Parts: sequence; C-alpha cells; structure tokens
Amino acid sequence: MTERNNAFLRKAEELEPMLHTREIAVSGGERVLKKGDSLCLDFGEHLVGTVTLRLSSRGSHPDAPLWLRLKFAERMSELKENVEDYHGWISASWVQQEQIHVDELPCELRLPRRYAFRYVQLEVLDISTKYDLIVGGAVCEAVSSADDAALPPYESADAELREIDRVACRTLHDCMQEVFEDGPKRDRRLWIGDLRLQALANYETYRQNDLVKRCLYLFAGSTLPGGRVGAGMFIRPEIEADDTAMFDYSLFFIPTLWDYYEATDDVETLRELWPSAWRQIELAREGFDENGLVRDSDVLGWCFLDWNLELNKQAGAQGVYLYCLKTAGKIAAALNDGEKASLIEEEYAKKKQAALDSLYDPALGLFVSGEKRQLSWASQIWMVLGGTAGGDVLDRIAARDDAVGMVTPYLHHHYVQALIDVGQREKALEVLRSYWGGMVKLGADTFWELFNPANPDESPYGGTIVNSYCHAWSCAPAYFLRKFFSK
Amino acid sequence: MTERNNAFLRKAEELEPMLHTREIAVSGGERVLKKGDSLCLDFGEHLVGTVTLRLSSRGSHPDAPLWLRLKFAERMSELKENVEDYHGWISASWVQQEQIHVDELPCELRLPRRYAFRYVQLEVLDISTKYDLIVGGAVCEAVSSADDAALPPYESADAELREIDRVACRTLHDCMQEVFEDGPKRDRRLWIGDLRLQALANYETYRQNDLVKRCLYLFAGSTLPGGRVGAGMFIRPEIEADDTAMFDYSLFFIPTLWDYYEATDDVETLRELWPSAWRQIELAREGFDENGLVRDSDVLGWCFLDWNLELNKQAGAQGVYLYCLKTAGKIAAALNDGEKASLIEEEYAKKKQAALDSLYDPALGLFVSGEKRQLSWASQIWMVLGGTAGGDVLDRIAARDDAVGMVTPYLHHHYVQALIDVGQREKALEVLRSYWGGMVKLGADTFWELFNPANPDESPYGGTIVNSYCHAWSCAPAYFLRKFFSK
Repeated sequence: MTERNNAFLRKAEELEPMLHTREIAVSGGERVLKKGDSLCLDFGEHLVGTVTLRLSSRGSHPDAPLWLRLKFAERMSELKENVEDYHGWISASWVQQEQIHVDELPCELRLPRRYAFRYVQLEVLDISTKYDLIVGGAVCEAVSSADDAALPPYESADAELREIDRVACRTLHDCMQEVFEDGPKRDRRLWIGDLRLQALANYETYRQNDLVKRCLYLFAGSTLPGGRVGAGMFIRPEIEADDTAMFDYSLFFIPTLWDYYEATDDVETLRELWPSAWRQIELAREGFDENGLVRDSDVLGWCFLDWNLELNKQAGAQGVYLYCLKTAGKIAAALNDGEKASLIEEEYAKKKQAALDSLYDPALGLFVSGEKRQLSWASQIWMVLGGTAGGDVLDRIAARDDAVGMVTPYLHHHYVQALIDVGQREKALEVLRSYWGGMVKLGADTFWELFNPANPDESPYGGTIVNSYCHAWSCAPAYFLRKFFSK
Repeated sequence: MTERNNAFLRKAEELEPMLHTREIAVSGGERVLKKGDSLCLDFGEHLVGTVTLRLSSRGSHPDAPLWLRLKFAERMSELKENVEDYHGWISASWVQQEQIHVDELPCELRLPRRYAFRYVQLEVLDISTKYDLIVGGAVCEAVSSADDAALPPYESADAELREIDRVACRTLHDCMQEVFEDGPKRDRRLWIGDLRLQALANYETYRQNDLVKRCLYLFAGSTLPGGRVGAGMFIRPEIEADDTAMFDYSLFFIPTLWDYYEATDDVETLRELWPSAWRQIELAREGFDENGLVRDSDVLGWCFLDWNLELNKQAGAQGVYLYCLKTAGKIAAALNDGEKASLIEEEYAKKKQAALDSLYDPALGLFVSGEKRQLSWASQIWMVLGGTAGGDVLDRIAARDDAVGMVTPYLHHHYVQALIDVGQREKALEVLRSYWGGMVKLGADTFWELFNPANPDESPYGGTIVNSYCHAWSCAPAYFLRKFFSK
C-alpha cells in the first residue's frame, strides 16, 4: 500500500540517534506488603525508560509466586483509574498497567517494556500467607536522544517563565527518542503535526537538527499512494507510513522542511526534498472547488486542527493551505525556482480571495466555516497564519461566547503564533502564562496532550486514563519564550 | 531457622539432573482475532515447559499495543474459571493466567515462565480497531529430567491397564524436573510424601535412581531445628527446608531411604543417611504418651494422611509410626546395627499393643481415632500397613457408610498397598481400574491431585482452579501394575 524511496530511508537510518541513558533510583523504604497492600514509588520527575524493581521477602521461604499489579503513571490521578473501567474508542492497551508473576524472591525484576511515568504503583494481587513482600526500591534507566549538556540556559528574570520553559524543555526532552515522538506514553510515534512544533522548539533548545532531518527523510521515504505524506510514521518492526492521512498534516511537510532549512542552511536537503513537499500541494489541490475554496467534509479526521469533535474544519483548512502555499513560495524562491514561485503567487491570490469571498462574514467581521457558518477560534487563527486576516479577528472572537473553543495546546500554539504575527506580543505572553502556566500550577512535570482549563477531565478518547501527559505538541513555550521573550 | 549439612548439600548438587527438552508445535490456524475474541490451542498432551507464541497482524500497521490474556490449563475446565473469582485460602498466584502487552508485531513472543498445561487460551483484551491479531501458532519447549528412552514397556494384554500405566508414567515424567516435584503446576517443589511414591514408581519405570538419591540428600542436608526432616524442600534461589513439618511426612524419610537401598543396593548412602532417618524416630517419639499411644492434636496439618479436613489423624499416625519403625528395623538389620534392631523390636511391640488396647474397637472389629472415636478408611489402611491389622478391617470398613472416606489418590495408593499386603490382589486391581481408570474415563492426560468420584469438583483449597492435575502422588499405578500385575 505504501510507496518507498529507499535512498531516502537509508539517509534516515544513517541519522538514527544515540540514546542517552541516566539511572534514577528510588527507595521503597523496605515497605512490607501483604495481599491487597499497595505502595506508590515517586521518582520525583517525569521519566521515559525501563524499570527494575528490587524485591525480597520476609517470613517463611516464599512458597507460592507473588502476583503483582503495576501501574505506571505520568500523573497521580492515573493511579486512581482502572483500565477495566475504560470503554473509550482507542485501545485500552495504551494504559500502562501490568500484571506480573514473580516465581523467585529475592530478585531484581527488570520489566521488558519502556514506560513514561513519574509514579510506579505496586499492588499485591496475591501472595502466600507464609511470607510478605518487601519492596527495597526501584531503578529507572531513563532514555532520550536529547543531550542535556547541549541545552542552553533560558535567560529570563521572570521565575514563572523560567519554570514554564523548564517544563516545556522536559516535555521535548522526553519525547526525543529514536524519532520525535508525539508522546512517550501514547502514541509513541512520529506524527508530522507534532514534529513541526518539536522542531521549532528544538532549534531554540537541544539543536539536534539531524533528528529533524531524519524525520523529514522518514516521511518522504515512505508515503501513501501518489506520494502523499502520511500523518504519522512507524519505525518498528519496519519503517512504514501510517495509512492515516489528513489534509493539514500532509501539507505540514512543507513548513517543517522550510523551518529546517532556515535553522540549518542545509540547502542540499531542501533541494532533495522539495519535490516531496511540492507533491503535497498538488495533492491538496484536489480538495478545492473551481472557485478555489476547500471542499468541506463530513469524514471524521479529514483535517485535524484541534481535538474538538464539534469543530468544522473548512475555514481552518483553507488557512492551513494558504499558510503552506506561502511557505512553498519561500522554498521556490530560495531554490531559484522562479516558475513555481510565480505559479504559487497566482494561486495564493486566488485562494485568498476565495476565502474572503466565501468564508468572511463582513457583518460579524469574522471568518465562518462550513454550511452552518460555524464560528470558531481555529478558523480565525488559521486565517491569520494564512495571511488573510489581521489581529482584529482574534480580538473579535475573544469577545464572543458562542464560538467553538480550543481544546489542545496544539491549537493554542497556533494562537500564540498568530498573536505574535499580528504584533500582539503582550497578549501572546499572557496566553503562555495563563494556559501553559495553568498546567504548571496544577503540578505538571511535563505539558499535557490536552488541557481545557474549564474542564480538566476532558478527553477526546472517552476517558482520561489514555490521555498522554507528556506530549510533544505542548512544548511550544520553549520555542516562544526563547525566541521572543528572552532578555 | 534451618540447619545445614553442607557435605550432604554438595552431594545433592552434584546429582542435579540434566533436563531433556522436546519441541512441540501447534498451529493457530492463522486465526484472526479482534477485541474480545479468544482462541484455544490444544497441544494434545500434558506438557511442562516454556511457550513461544507466533503472532502477526492483518490490516493497517499496528498502531497500539496488543493486550492479551493467556490461560494455561491442564484440563479444559480450568479455562472456564477466572482467577478473579477464586477466594480460597491458598494463593491465587498459582493460577496460570497472564496479561501481556505486545508492543511489536509480528513477533515470536517467548513467555519467561514455565507452565504445566495441555491447553493455551489466548484472549484479546484490547487491540486497535485498525488491525487484527493473527495467531500463527505456538511452540512448547517441554522439559523433564525423565529420559523417555529409558522407559521399559509395560507388558500387559489388557488395554485398559496399559492406558492407566501410560497416564501414570506421563504423570511421573512431567513431575520429574530438577527434583521430583509434587506437581509442575502447583506447588512445583519437592515434598517427601510425594517423593516416596514417585521413587517407587521410578524404580519400575525410568529408573533414575540418582534423582531419588539427590532428593534424600536434600532432605537430610537442610533440616528444621533438631534435625527434623521438613515436609518439603525449596531449591531456588537457595536450598532450604520448608518450615512446615508433619508427623507422618518427617517419618517417611525412613521408608524412602529403605526403598532406595532395596532398589539400588547403595549401602554407602544407606549408612550415611541412617542417622538422619533414625533422628526422625527420636523426634516422633516425643509425640507419644507413656502408654505408647500417639497424642491426638487439633493443630491443622499436624499429620497429613489425606486431604480430608474432617479426618481425625490419631490412629493413622500410630499406623504410620509403626510402619516406619518396622522399616527402621530393616535398615538397622541391613547395617548390622543389632543394638538398634532390638530396641526397635521392643518399641514396636509396645506401640502395637497400645494401638490394639486403645484404638481397636472389638465390637466393631475396626480401629477408631480420636476422642470421638471416629471411623475412617485412613485408620484401617495405616493399621494394616503398620502390621497391626489384617484384611478383615478393610472388608468391614467397606461395608460401612458412616466412615470418613478417601479424597486423594495419595490415600488410595496406601489402600491398594494395604490390599496387596493382605493378599487381596484382585481387589487391589479393581481399585486401580475403578479409581485411576475413572480419571482416564474423564479424559485425564495425567493423574490428578484430587479425585473424589462422588464429587469431581471437590477441592480442599476453596476452588478447583488451583488444583493440580498432574500430581506426583497419583502415579501409583505405574508402580503397582508393573510390579504386581505384569505378564
């Protein structure tokens, strides 16, 4: 089903990063556990890695196996939930809970899987009455391809901003593995929507630009039929594009490539991957009507924008296309591809006009989306980023209480970028403080996949137990603070 | 707590057997499984070993882990039970059920633990909707220290008896591991009550006499305070006697040593271990009153005899003591220890008389036990084996319906031996046919720990799910048939 470019995949494989490891040990306080007892080990920080438990016994020689339930949790709240009670639409297999039998004590029990966690809860499901379990402690071998020594300090006199930056850097750090993962708990893989934001944060922090390059070659090296860049990539057991494709995600290959070039001046990669980028424009064009307006769709997930199931995507998609087309124009110019550059200019003008003609409501002074002319934050944000609107739409949407709101840090990222683009830097900083700072105030060690201050238990998956609490698309502050709010 | 004789333990360690391995593969029929689906693999025979599952997928690239429940069952009936529903007094950790997360497909999933099973049930607890599981098959690497090539054929024209012998030999075979285990599902360790019967079957079958010798040295090498032989032994992580001791089990060191000598003529071992054997007599004597009658006890498990919680053990214990004292006399004679031999003779006469004076009810023509003068099969059987009664008590107890009956193959073994001792060979054969043959008729691949024809769901553990269905003490027919009913 997928198409392969082996030369590209070889480049990607050559760029496989080294994983740095670090050992973090916690004591179990020699706690004595009987049947039904449990114990929570707090590693004090968010980690990604393998865990070894040091277990022994007290009393008679163990005369039956020990049966343990283990829960690994990024937030304490996950420990109160049971996987058996989750009945949402994504797989409960993401929940980091295990049942383990231990046949011999004492032992160093090395669990084979990688977990993303701060807390480890051990619960004795059963044990013999002739002996008790003693938990000596646990060691995590934490892994990341981010090099801690490479992280420049964030210079700011503002302690709150330094703390937001610290949490953002840790989020990015823990998502940097063999690829830029979206979340080390879930989905543990490369998504282009996340990659684009991670790469931006990376240029300001760890500067492991080869990891971005690797991910670009992965996306270009395994594509869906016709050369379409998939929404995500699998690395194991073999490299393969996810057969999910979304309008916006395929297009984001273009700005991700451009941002990489801007950060590195690596014109060779820009040139080599430009055809793959241009192909996304060609494929996206098929989704437009003759007037240059993107066709709306009822298909769930045809275009992402935000994890808000009510959101109509038409206007946002138009904005994304304009944003990416504009970026494609920059690439064409940088590569002296004058012919494409002028084609792009012409097309951009037409599609911008279509947006103004069909999606802008002059009475409201706002962009609307879909047949029902839905008002949303996403539509205004992307029209700003697409160069079709100014800061006034952001002011106006903020004054309405009937607009479809923002659910994810991902859309908030684009909101902050839009504010900066229209010169509202103070407002942008206020959003960074209130939204990401809001997670910090709730004790976030890393930034979450989802955060709705009005409803902290929101999940698009039918249960918070499968939410990811260290999520790449939430690392934005490390980019914005360091680039725009440093002194 | 335990006492060690390192010279004995070194001998035991030098005798550690080689484990023979055999690979048995079954196909999964390329069955396609979705969430909630399950599949039962039937290996067609009882096995002890590790299992590797061959798993792959169909549909999209797996985008979430596979969450599997695995049940390993010796009998099909175990698959219908859930460990969560077991609330008995021994640990539910014995139930061979696992929950496993598989992060990558396709894979060869090698499970780290050893199981005793014929059936393996796979149940998909959760999976992504984007792919299905395909079960290609499974391979068991079966282990046993019994050498199949060493097993002489059982010569009999009777197909039923040959089948009973075959199942008995398989039972013994699957319990022969690093030691003679009681059951490879549970408790997976050396118990002296089981060892004695396994050794007898071994002399007629696999003839791995060094494994018996190893077990004798283990029991003599790690003892409870005062040199008392424990009821069981642990081998891992280090050799240690179980701190459980039972009146009858400690004494059984004596006949186990004597039977070994009779089978091997290894007088050196007999001489070296005779003090350990004699010590059990000295310790057991403390349990007698001044008239030579064993003191009854309310302590659960002070003496085993059978897994019948109603059974009063006093008379049976007296019989066991007489049986073992008689055997000790044979050892003393073989070692020309005339002094002990005559002491034993004297003591035997006194304690036999005490049994006849206090435990025999002339009106009933039967032995009674305990304050409440309980009538039981166990009391008659052990009085016969102890040399205090003839076949008439066996006939009389059979005619009563108010006697406490037999629950285990273990006590049935002693019943058959008692029948043979009093010359009732035909009746002995009838018991072998009806009792062990009854298990064969119910589809037994190996003989069970417990079998009450009147109540097949009986368990002393509060639930059949923890019963062992390949249990050493049930291998008796291989001994009796080959020794007494061969042609």
